[in-house]
Amino acid sequence: MEPDGDAARLGLGRAAQTLPPRLLLLPLLPLLLGRGLRVVAAASSSGAAAEDSSAMEELATEKEAEESHRQDSVSLLTFILLLTLTILTIWLFKHRRVRFLHETGLAMIYGLIVGVILRYGTPATSGHDKSLSCTQEDRAFSTLLVNVSGKFFEYTLKGEISPGKINSVEQNDMLRKVTFDPEVFFNILLPPIIFHAGYSLKKRHFFRNLGSILAYAFLGTAVSCFIIGNLMYGVVKLMKIVGQLSDKFYYTDCLFFGAIISATDPVTVLAIFNELHADVDLYALLFGESVLNDAVAIVLSSSIVAYQPAGLNTHAFDAAAFFKSVGIFLGIFSGSFTMGAVTGVVTALVTKFTKLHCFPLLETALFFLMSWSTFLLAEACGFTGVVAVLFCGITQAHYTYNNLSVESRSRTKQLFEVLHFLAENFIFSYMGLALFTFQKHVFSPVFIIGAFVAIFLGRAAHVYPLSFFLNLGRRHKIGWNFQHMMMFSGLRGAMAFALAIRDTASYARQMMFTTTLLIVFFTVWIVGGGTTPMLSWLNIRVGVDPDQDPPPNNDSFQVLQGDGPDSAGGNRTKQESAWLFRLWYSFDHNYLKPILTHSGPPLTTTLPAWCGLLARCLTSPQVYDNQEPLREEDSDFILTEGDLTLTYGDSTVTANGSSGSHTASTSLEGSRRTKSSSEEVLERDLGMGDQKVSSRGTRLVFPLEDNA
Amino acid sequence: MEPDGDAARLGLGRAAQTLPPRLLLLPLLPLLLGRGLRVVAAASSSGAAAEDSSAMEELATEKEAEESHRQDSVSLLTFILLLTLTILTIWLFKHRRVRFLHETGLAMIYGLIVGVILRYGTPATSGHDKSLSCTQEDRAFSTLLVNVSGKFFEYTLKGEISPGKINSVEQNDMLRKVTFDPEVFFNILLPPIIFHAGYSLKKRHFFRNLGSILAYAFLGTAVSCFIIGNLMYGVVKLMKIVGQLSDKFYYTDCLFFGAIISATDPVTVLAIFNELHADVDLYALLFGESVLNDAVAIVLSSSIVAYQPAGLNTHAFDAAAFFKSVGIFLGIFSGSFTMGAVTGVVTALVTKFTKLHCFPLLETALFFLMSWSTFLLAEACGFTGVVAVLFCGITQAHYTYNNLSVESRSRTKQLFEVLHFLAENFIFSYMGLALFTFQKHVFSPVFIIGAFVAIFLGRAAHVYPLSFFLNLGRRHKIGWNFQHMMMFSGLRGAMAFALAIRDTASYARQMMFTTTLLIVFFTVWIVGGGTTPMLSWLNIRVGVDPDQDPPPNNDSFQVLQGDGPDSAGGNRTKQESAWLFRLWYSFDHNYLKPILTHSGPPLTTTLPAWCGLLARCLTSPQVYDNQEPLREEDSDFILTEGDLTLTYGDSTVTANGSSGSHTASTSLEGSRRTKSSSEEVLERDLGMGDQKVSSRGTRLVFPLEDNA
Repeated sequence: MEPDGDAARLGLGRAAQTLPPRLLLLPLLPLLLGRGLRVVAAASSSGAAAEDSSAMEELATEKEAEESHRQDSVSLLTFILLLTLTILTIWLFKHRRVRFLHETGLAMIYGLIVGVILRYGTPATSGHDKSLSCTQEDRAFSTLLVNVSGKFFEYTLKGEISPGKINSVEQNDMLRKVTFDPEVFFNILLPPIIFHAGYSLKKRHFFRNLGSILAYAFLGTAVSCFIIGNLMYGVVKLMKIVGQLSDKFYYTDCLFFGAIISATDPVTVLAIFNELHADVDLYALLFGESVLNDAVAIVLSSSIVAYQPAGLNTHAFDAAAFFKSVGIFLGIFSGSFTMGAVTGVVTALVTKFTKLHCFPLLETALFFLMSWSTFLLAEACGFTGVVAVLFCGITQAHYTYNNLSVESRSRTKQLFEVLHFLAENFIFSYMGLALFTFQKHVFSPVFIIGAFVAIFLGRAAHVYPLSFFLNLGRRHKIGWNFQHMMMFSGLRGAMAFALAIRDTASYARQMMFTTTLLIVFFTVWIVGGGTTPMLSWLNIRVGVDPDQDPPPNNDSFQVLQGDGPDSAGGNRTKQESAWLFRLWYSFDHNYLKPILTHSGPPLTTTLPAWCGLLARCLTSPQVYDNQEPLREEDSDFILTEGDLTLTYGDSTVTANGSSGSHTASTSLEGSRRTKSSSEEVLERDLGMGDQKVSSRGTRLVFPLEDNA
Repeated sequence: MEPDGDAARLGLGRAAQTLPPRLLLLPLLPLLLGRGLRVVAAASSSGAAAEDSSAMEELATEKEAEESHRQDSVSLLTFILLLTLTILTIWLFKHRRVRFLHETGLAMIYGLIVGVILRYGTPATSGHDKSLSCTQEDRAFSTLLVNVSGKFFEYTLKGEISPGKINSVEQNDMLRKVTFDPEVFFNILLPPIIFHAGYSLKKRHFFRNLGSILAYAFLGTAVSCFIIGNLMYGVVKLMKIVGQLSDKFYYTDCLFFGAIISATDPVTVLAIFNELHADVDLYALLFGESVLNDAVAIVLSSSIVAYQPAGLNTHAFDAAAFFKSVGIFLGIFSGSFTMGAVTGVVTALVTKFTKLHCFPLLETALFFLMSWSTFLLAEACGFTGVVAVLFCGITQAHYTYNNLSVESRSRTKQLFEVLHFLAENFIFSYMGLALFTFQKHVFSPVFIIGAFVAIFLGRAAHVYPLSFFLNLGRRHKIGWNFQHMMMFSGLRGAMAFALAIRDTASYARQMMFTTTLLIVFFTVWIVGGGTTPMLSWLNIRVGVDPDQDPPPNNDSFQVLQGDGPDSAGGNRTKQESAWLFRLWYSFDHNYLKPILTHSGPPLTTTLPAWCGLLARCLTSPQVYDNQEPLREEDSDFILTEGDLTLTYGDSTVTANGSSGSHTASTSLEGSRRTKSSSEEVLERDLGMGDQKVSSRGTRLVFPLEDNA
């Protein structure tokens, strides 16, 4: 019985100008599948020759639309069920403390399985005979009005199709349905992930390592991109000689590949770090690098595209174009950064100077809208929305968060946490699916092997020399074990995939996409499974209280020390950090915090006397009540971080590892974590009989004495 | 400086088959604007004659795409800023306790203002010369391949255009951009609103009045639809005679209008009821009716479309078609109901039998996905997703909610609350905007006046006779003041708008849309502003503790009594409710609750002995620990409701009034509301000098003695 189908028929008949009403009951589909889904009304009934009766025609069109709508629902349901399955299995894994396979790896496996089923299990409903050619003048218009026996139909341009592909398009409707619009990744799935990363940044350790993080993210990514690009150009030349290359592959394509594959995404590693409470500085370095190099990779890849010299298709080196693209890089990056920071500051001011916190729902909604508008604003101004959203998230966490009501704090956290979780698992299960359902794969063994070697070398050339130079300036040296761990954790994930799928039109891009997909699979599974053994093998301490500084006298940790016993003093931050950081810190503490939040010293004390009136206006009355003494230590950061983690229960499930989930054990056991948490973790891990950890338990070095 | 534009150019040049990369940085746009936005790449540069250089061509196309993308961002930003403005003003109103204008009315006003600016303030960039005609055989295909000097471009069918409209389409790009796809309402904005309504239902009072609610929602809506339809047919006939009608308007069109305009949406009224703690039974009646009649109206309107007899365009009465559409109505409704309930039950079982509650994030994600899959499942099976989602929400609240962890309870509540709030305010501000930006308005004064009269009469014919018949069977009579209030609160809102905008292709539908829009404006503003005076004028008590039964001996309330002092007994529910309800209640309490949740009596005691094994499997161990005595009163409902409101702070802002926001005063004052809350409310209202209430304060009758 198809009651609704009948219901919709006549409405549609009269309403051919708008969309078929049956379609309109499909919610959130545009959200996930974007344009990709709606592309082609199903062809099931269009094989017949042209009928004369317009009624029959309408009926056929409706049936098509209805069928298409149903297929859309089914394909989206596939994803939902996939995610549901993933969630249930994740729960099982967490329940049984299985650590060798992370949820993202799991999502990919399920995606692969469903992909295989879709690929080989569904009949190939080839969509022959539903397109017709109509030769036209020499320009493609965006809208086409087609006169069909007196009726006008409006068509919109979808894109160009290479002549060879005309017959292969739409070979399998179901495959086509599940292979959806790449823009969805950038427009819908990435922003919440990136915002969440920024919003739940562990600020203290992030800022303490800011210099190194920036170096890794900017210099390192650029180095890695350049090295991979050049190595791949060699590989491509080789392929040309061997005769493996069947189409054009320019130098800029190689550089582009370098850019998209340089964005690391150690989701798995960080999740395991979180669970095991691994060293917080290493965590900060890895996390900070991966968040920022996502942004760098986006901007870098568009700059490389822009680098292509003005005379089309020459693809040779051109100094002017090179400097132009460097300029573009800097322009876009700083513009996006500013935009994100400004929106964050505006939100902070609004939440500070209204009493919006009496109405948490309004506050949350405002917060959400402002964060979203960052993205749109950046896009409208020609900057990069994703980058803007990242810095907006950081600013929101640093300032606005303090102005929110308690309820809004947990509400915003949880909202973005859920969005992030869903988006991330969706991307990973989609990746699994794409390996089989994507219909334009170009598998080139030489290129793939070359790429694996290149990313290995690129990562090595990025981590080790940079660490060497950074160690020259750092008080807390980045030890060899940290460097090896960073080398090992250079796995590729969502961002590489999103950048690769963005454009799969040319032969070169298709080859890149396939290779990227395989690299992501390989690194996620291998590195994900190898993290725990690697940690113990490299003697990286686990079970660390993140608010605690590294133990001063423990010989097994050569890391982060370098300045001996004096580092146990009360005012570490000042000593540890570079002057730039100190400058920023005092500026932030003395001026920005009091202006933008209810905390910090009153502006009347920090601003010069002639600003008295302004200072009084901007300082909130609360400040005078709970005026913090100007402690020398970074109490400010600690406090804020304490706040951040306060509202967080168990969040090891946030795969990006960005949330304050070092309280996992706390919430599970219902007690505030104490300084002896390392023993607890040890006990827990051994007690649970987790074979993975306990088998190597002897090699895991725990700081068994309480360093407090 | 437009760095990104340059960056995107060449990538696009090579990638004409996929989408222009610039577009892909626009996130969440598909979410809100759906297909509507992407329809036409801007025409700014297409006026020139066809150039020969393909490079120039590509450049022009990119520029267009980029320009279009920017316009998209700007138009979405407009909405975001509109919502932000609304939120800030709502805060101001709440802060100053202004009650005459509800937030939804406010959103509409802002929408109107922006609409005026867009309409008259922006230059009419008429999109001439960008479409070209291409006469073709007698069938419209879904995909068109167009050969442009050797290159193939793919076009997709957008819809039919009536020949007269060809030149008026795209008159103003900006207007067109903000007037987006009607499907968005059904697919994206309505589901969270409806789910939230179901999920936050105040079950006790809802179930106590279930019979009346069902009668109002089903019978009442049908009666109202039929009466309005017939009256409007008279109006249309009159218009034909007078010569005001310039196109066809069938009887089925009139009935369709009756169906779409019969869905009441007393958002404003309920929000004010919440704030004032007005009578809970009246609240339950109004709320229950409005939630269910949304569902009824959706199904009714599609049934009416299906009613049109098989022979096209006769539009005369046909018994077979009539019974067919009744069958369709019943089929769709029961199918959707079942689907929603089943998904809810499955979720309950999953959350009960896994220990997912240790990981709130997983739990929340699962909950969200399962609720969403209801919609898709219903759509895939040909039922109505919105209806399914409503009953899914009710089931989830009744069973699954009890299995969730404390964190997930608040998380899911808050998630859907935020989604609901954003969606609702978006719809209302969009309504304001649509009055000026929608380009196919048909203002017909006769029709509009006729419609106002018809909905008034339809509402009257729905409320008064039905109440009379219901009172014959009810112990607690529905008093005259309640009936008048129900009559008064019959305002139209989001659902009427969504149904009307679903199809605006024909002349008749355009006239309906315009009229619906005006009716919504009028009723939201007038009724919204008049609720507080009306309440006092009708002597409806405010400041009621919802968990408290109506006072037994208070002469000012003739309502809900009828059975005198004996109603003060402990086992009221049994006496109050009909046998059907009792039957359901005991079935639910004895079997469903124990099976689906951790509460209720153990199944081993309620099931017959031969089901022993099954009973032991299904009963959760917790039940034996906290086994509730089988109290005769509806403790179960009270308890559950207590749970529901527990996690809720101030939620008067949820405009649908569906949340447990009678605790608003509590959260504000930080103390648990006591039995004397009515006095508190009185004090608060009078003390604040709210001129609206205090001026009529003498007429507000409060139950000043504590009835506990």
